Amino acid sequence: MNPGGIGSPVAQGAAGESEERQLAWAYLSRVVLGPCPALTALIDSVGVREAARAVRERSLPPILRAATERRRELDLAARDLETIRALGGRLVTPDCAEWPAWRMLGLAQLTPGRDPDGAVPLVFWVRGDRNLAELTERSLAVVGARCSTGYGDRVAGAVAGDLAVHGWTVVSGAAFGIDGMAHRAALAVGGATIAVLACGPDRPYPAQHDRLLARIAETGLVVSEYPPGTDARKHHFLARNRLIAALSDGVLVIEAGMRSGARNTVKWARRIGRPALAVPGSVDSAASAGCHRMIRDGEAVLVTCAQEVIAETTPLHLPLIAGADVPGARELRDEETRVLAVLPDTGGRWPHEICAATGLSPAEVRAALVALDLAGRAASGGGGWRRLETSRERHG
Amino acid sequence: MNPGGIGSPVAQGAAGESEERQLAWAYLSRVVLGPCPALTALIDSVGVREAARAVRERSLPPILRAATERRRELDLAARDLETIRALGGRLVTPDCAEWPAWRMLGLAQLTPGRDPDGAVPLVFWVRGDRNLAELTERSLAVVGARCSTGYGDRVAGAVAGDLAVHGWTVVSGAAFGIDGMAHRAALAVGGATIAVLACGPDRPYPAQHDRLLARIAETGLVVSEYPPGTDARKHHFLARNRLIAALSDGVLVIEAGMRSGARNTVKWARRIGRPALAVPGSVDSAASAGCHRMIRDGEAVLVTCAQEVIAETTPLHLPLIAGADVPGARELRDEETRVLAVLPDTGGRWPHEICAATGLSPAEVRAALVALDLAGRAASGGGGWRRLETSRERHG
Repeated sequence: MNPGGIGSPVAQGAAGESEERQLAWAYLSRVVLGPCPALTALIDSVGVREAARAVRERSLPPILRAATERRRELDLAARDLETIRALGGRLVTPDCAEWPAWRMLGLAQLTPGRDPDGAVPLVFWVRGDRNLAELTERSLAVVGARCSTGYGDRVAGAVAGDLAVHGWTVVSGAAFGIDGMAHRAALAVGGATIAVLACGPDRPYPAQHDRLLARIAETGLVVSEYPPGTDARKHHFLARNRLIAALSDGVLVIEAGMRSGARNTVKWARRIGRPALAVPGSVDSAASAGCHRMIRDGEAVLVTCAQEVIAETTPLHLPLIAGADVPGARELRDEETRVLAVLPDTGGRWPHEICAATGLSPAEVRAALVALDLAGRAASGGGGWRRLETSRERHG
Repeated sequence: MNPGGIGSPVAQGAAGESEERQLAWAYLSRVVLGPCPALTALIDSVGVREAARAVRERSLPPILRAATERRRELDLAARDLETIRALGGRLVTPDCAEWPAWRMLGLAQLTPGRDPDGAVPLVFWVRGDRNLAELTERSLAVVGARCSTGYGDRVAGAVAGDLAVHGWTVVSGAAFGIDGMAHRAALAVGGATIAVLACGPDRPYPAQHDRLLARIAETGLVVSEYPPGTDARKHHFLARNRLIAALSDGVLVIEAGMRSGARNTVKWARRIGRPALAVPGSVDSAASAGCHRMIRDGEAVLVTCAQEVIAETTPLHLPLIAGADVPGARELRDEETRVLAVLPDTGGRWPHEICAATGLSPAEVRAALVALDLAGRAASGGGGWRRLETSRERHG
């Protein structure tokens, strides 16, 4: 029915295969509309094209059948890709070089049963020219109350501006109040900023931020896991918050009421091992009550300026993936072998040291560390990266 | 030379002996002018009259000779007692029923070598009718910046007033700014308040607080470890801060610059096991910078209102005295035996439960618990008081 859809005859060869995979990702993204750990697991196991075929043909285990039933016949993949490209955007999938694999490790370590909404997103629908992986190399989320006060706006502007000046990408949710101030402050100093939306990347939400979102897309990125045209629904915001946390080295909250969505973003940050920081304010201000509660309860560290934010945040540092499944031993790629060779058994080395020792680029080192981490061959802790004993080594 | 001085012929008998001891305490208080762990140890060992004689006659170990040399010939004891009595005050010594022994345990557990300024005070020179031990039964220190802002004054007034309304005595240092606001707020609601001075109790310091101090003495207490007429010196303020902490169940800081004396009071609170609390404010305000630093560094817990202060503070709860010397077994007094009989071996009982179980008054129970604690026969923990095994019991 849809000539560009999955299963249609398309041009063969690498380019054709690549486009076919894009269509499969786009199709699945619209079928599940958000995080779906069971689908992620299926794709990991059989590949994206086979997963798309299985969904389409309903040859699925019951749990996945329920999750995909409602929209499995809806294949707007070609149209969605056309829409995003017409906006100067693209679909970023795990096949792409700019896929922020590094950033997604935090979500990948969550237990699907315990954190059903915490899955790694299938894809990112992206507006803007910048490379998503590069732009999130040193990034901080700055979020907070929609109903911010003059004080909160002033602090958000000062801190986000200082962070951007120091080369940090400011990640936020494009909402009214603190979010909007944070984006604007980064733009004002010519810094990088990323808006993560709870609706399709083509939908200006809130509508009054239409121009702001266009400006963000010009110099930074507007990203979403939802395909073009998707409306923002309540549960999308909670799922979106996990991506704000995952795409950042830490989450800073500037003003939050007791029931603020920013507190949800902090919960995600803590769950995936990112520092959570909060700015205090007047004890009379309801807009600071959530910040005070988080600091008091030990959920967030009190910070008062960009320098303190940076001091609490270590870029390129990933938490140890506790209890991750160790896949069976596989042949290591050349870069991975070289990285593994320079990792200590105890203590740790930082990525820039590994670059120096191996002669590999930061991007190559990162890719190798991610692969080694997922393979259970390396782990990061407070002192950098170290190699892990494999079970074969352990038993002789 | 001084007819009422130490060693002068005075009326014999109990009243005479009591007055003689008061004169000895008053004499020694003026000789050392502040904390002197070596003198405290000497008094503990030989009694106050013998200690006074030894100081007067220079029959002392070198360390004490140096500490007492300068003023040992100055005996204004009778005059000082006359001065304080003319002010409607008195000298409170460890001989007195109102000596806050309970409160002094925190200082008593400090190691003299490590905390030379942390000694238990020799005496309290006191203005006001209230009983010092009773007035510090449920007490909170509220301290902060001299150069407070309108915000700090407002919060100090609200929180100290709420604490006083709930029956807590507000302890502070009578300084400009937060201290003054805290005292005034307690007075305004008819609550109890104690000013701890770094000068003699007859000296209005600061001079502009003359009337405030007079009002505090009318319904609460003005106390000092320095004899009448003593000027406030810089090191007196640091020593005074330990008494503010020791006389309170917790220390609340409302506004403090980075070098505020309030941070010193918090250090004492932490050293003697009292909770330290701080109120946040605008990150732009230098007057809140010290509070933010203490919260950030984990030295103080963030609180925003009196309810949170009370939640963090447990009255009548003393930390376990780690490593305290256990004096040799002595005969227990009747009240002590009765209290010991109702203490559990594990878990704990609270003082009010012990009152109910023994039929003793709160004052008797407290006195007995202090004595049992010092004798190593009882200890307090998170769940109240429990009995300790003696070494004889332990070994069969």
